[in-house]
Amino acid sequence: MPQLSLGNQNSLVSINGNLTPPEEAMVSIFDRGFLYGDSVYEVTLTYEGIPFLLDEHLERLWHSAAGIAMTPTWSKDEIKKFISEGLEAFSKLSDAKRQYIRVIITRGGGEIGLDPSLSNGQNLFIIFRPLPEPIKEYYEKGVDLVVTEVIRTPKKAMDPNVKSGNYLNNVMAIKQAREKGAYDAVMLNDKGFVTESTTANIWIVLGETIITPPIEAGLLGGLTRRTLLQIGMDKGLKIKEQNFSPETLTSASEVFITSSTREVLPVTRINGELIGSGSPGPITKKLHQLYKEFRDQYIKTAQSKL
Amino acid sequence: MPQLSLGNQNSLVSINGNLTPPEEAMVSIFDRGFLYGDSVYEVTLTYEGIPFLLDEHLERLWHSAAGIAMTPTWSKDEIKKFISEGLEAFSKLSDAKRQYIRVIITRGGGEIGLDPSLSNGQNLFIIFRPLPEPIKEYYEKGVDLVVTEVIRTPKKAMDPNVKSGNYLNNVMAIKQAREKGAYDAVMLNDKGFVTESTTANIWIVLGETIITPPIEAGLLGGLTRRTLLQIGMDKGLKIKEQNFSPETLTSASEVFITSSTREVLPVTRINGELIGSGSPGPITKKLHQLYKEFRDQYIKTAQSKL
Repeated sequence: MPQLSLGNQNSLVSINGNLTPPEEAMVSIFDRGFLYGDSVYEVTLTYEGIPFLLDEHLERLWHSAAGIAMTPTWSKDEIKKFISEGLEAFSKLSDAKRQYIRVIITRGGGEIGLDPSLSNGQNLFIIFRPLPEPIKEYYEKGVDLVVTEVIRTPKKAMDPNVKSGNYLNNVMAIKQAREKGAYDAVMLNDKGFVTESTTANIWIVLGETIITPPIEAGLLGGLTRRTLLQIGMDKGLKIKEQNFSPETLTSASEVFITSSTREVLPVTRINGELIGSGSPGPITKKLHQLYKEFRDQYIKTAQSKL
Repeated sequence: MPQLSLGNQNSLVSINGNLTPPEEAMVSIFDRGFLYGDSVYEVTLTYEGIPFLLDEHLERLWHSAAGIAMTPTWSKDEIKKFISEGLEAFSKLSDAKRQYIRVIITRGGGEIGLDPSLSNGQNLFIIFRPLPEPIKEYYEKGVDLVVTEVIRTPKKAMDPNVKSGNYLNNVMAIKQAREKGAYDAVMLNDKGFVTESTTANIWIVLGETIITPPIEAGLLGGLTRRTLLQIGMDKGLKIKEQNFSPETLTSASEVFITSSTREVLPVTRINGELIGSGSPGPITKKLHQLYKEFRDQYIKTAQSKL
C-alpha cells in the first residue's frame, strides 16, 4: 500500500478497493468516464462517523447504473467494505468531524468508440474528504437563486434522474447564476416548468401546502427530497409533488432547496425579488427541524447496531 | 522524457506537451473532465502524414470551448507544434500509414464543485494512434441505421454543436442501434426532425436534390459536412440544408452519412427497410469521388508548402 496522506486535495481515494493518496488518484485517459462522462456517482456524508442513508445511496447508484445500461461489477457489500476501510484510514489522517464520500463507477477503458460493449471492465473510485461546516448565514438569511435560460436536459435525451458523469448542463447553468451573483440556478424543463437547481431539489410553500415538482418533470429524485415527502406525510402535513411555473415559484410565500449536503436550505430571493417577507419562513424551519430529528434518530439507531 | 512505446493501447499521448506512453497517460480523478465531462475535443486524421483540415479542426475546438465558456490556455500554434512532435515520435514507433489524432482540453482540477471558476488550470491531452483501414464492404454494400427513441440533446440544454466530454446521449443511442444489429443510430430532435447519427452527419437524396439537416436542428456541424456543402455549391449541384422527418428519410432514393474518419459512407437500410435499390446510389458515389479529389488537392497543396 502506498504511504497514505491527504495531500493538497485534503482527500483519500479508494481505487478499485485500494487506498491511495490524492496525488496518485489517477485514471487512464482511455477510460470512458474521462472520454464520454460514461460513469455514475453518488455523494453521501457522515454524521458521527456513520454514512447517512448509505443503503439508499447505493440503491440509487444501482438505479443510475441501470439508467445507462450498466451493472456494477462490485456488490453493494463490497462497496460498503471499501467505504468502511476508507473512513477508518481517513480518520487516522484527519480530525474532521464529518466526512464527504463520493462513489464513482466508470464503464472503464478499452478500444476508443462510443459503443459501450467496447469496455473491458469498470473502475471504482471512492473519494473521502472533510465535509465543510454548513455556512450559518445561508440558513439564517436564506440564499438567492436565478432562473436560467439553460433548460434541464429532457428525460428522452438523458434522464436527469441518472446521476452520471455528464454534468455540463448543470455546469453551464450554475455559471450563469454565479455571474449574476446568485447562489445557484433554477432550471426549467422544455415545457417551461420548474425542475430543480443544479445540485438540489426545489420546494415552494403555497398557503399551507408544500410542493415540489414530480420526478416526471425531469429531475434527480433526491434522497433528502424523498425523506422530506415521507416525513411530511407521516406528520399529516399538506405536502405533494406537482408541476409549477417560474411565476408560481416567485410568488410563493416560502421557497427552499434540499440536498444531502445542505439538508433544508431557505431561499429568500429569486431573480432579485424577495420571496415572502425576505426571511426564511416558518414552514421551511419546521421542516428542517423535522428532518434533523429523523436524521438523529437514524444515526442513533445505526449506532445501536454497531 | 519517459521511454516511449505504444503499449497495449497502440497509442502515444501528449500531456500538456509532454509525450507519454499510453499506460502512463493518466489524469487526476479530481479533473473536471473526469468528474463532469467538462472538456472539449476534436478528432482529425492524416493523409500521407499530414493532418487533414487541421486549422479548421482547431477552429472548431475553439468554437466548442467558447460554447462551454472556456478559453484554451494554449495557442493554436502551440497545439500544432505538439501534434507535429507527436506525429514524429509516433512514426518512429509505428509503421501505420495513417494516424488518428484526438485533441482533448479539460477545464482541469481544483476544489470539487460544479462552478467552473473553481478550476485551477486546464489540461491538454493529444492521443496519436494508427487509423484503421476503411472497411471496404461498408462502402460497397452500404450500412444500416435505426431511428432510436433517444432524442438528441436540445440546443437549449447543451448545444450538440459543442464537441464536449458529455457523450452519454450518443452512447445510449448507439447502444440501442447495436442491440438491433445496426451500424449506427439516427437521432431525432425534440420536434421529431432528423438531426444526425451518433458520430456522423446524415444526408438524403430526393430526386436530384441533396439535403442535410441545418445546424439549428441541433447537431454537430461536421467539417466533412461543411466541405461537401461547399463542393456541391461549387459544382452547381442542388444541395441544401433543410429539416426532414424520419418518414422522408426512409423514403429517400439515397442516404449517406459523413464524418472525418468515414468520409462519405452509403446507407442502404434504415429500420430494416431498403433505401432505394438497396445498393449505394450514384449521387453518393459521385459526392465521395468529389470529396476525395478535394482532399487529395488539399494534401498536395500542404505538401508543396512543406
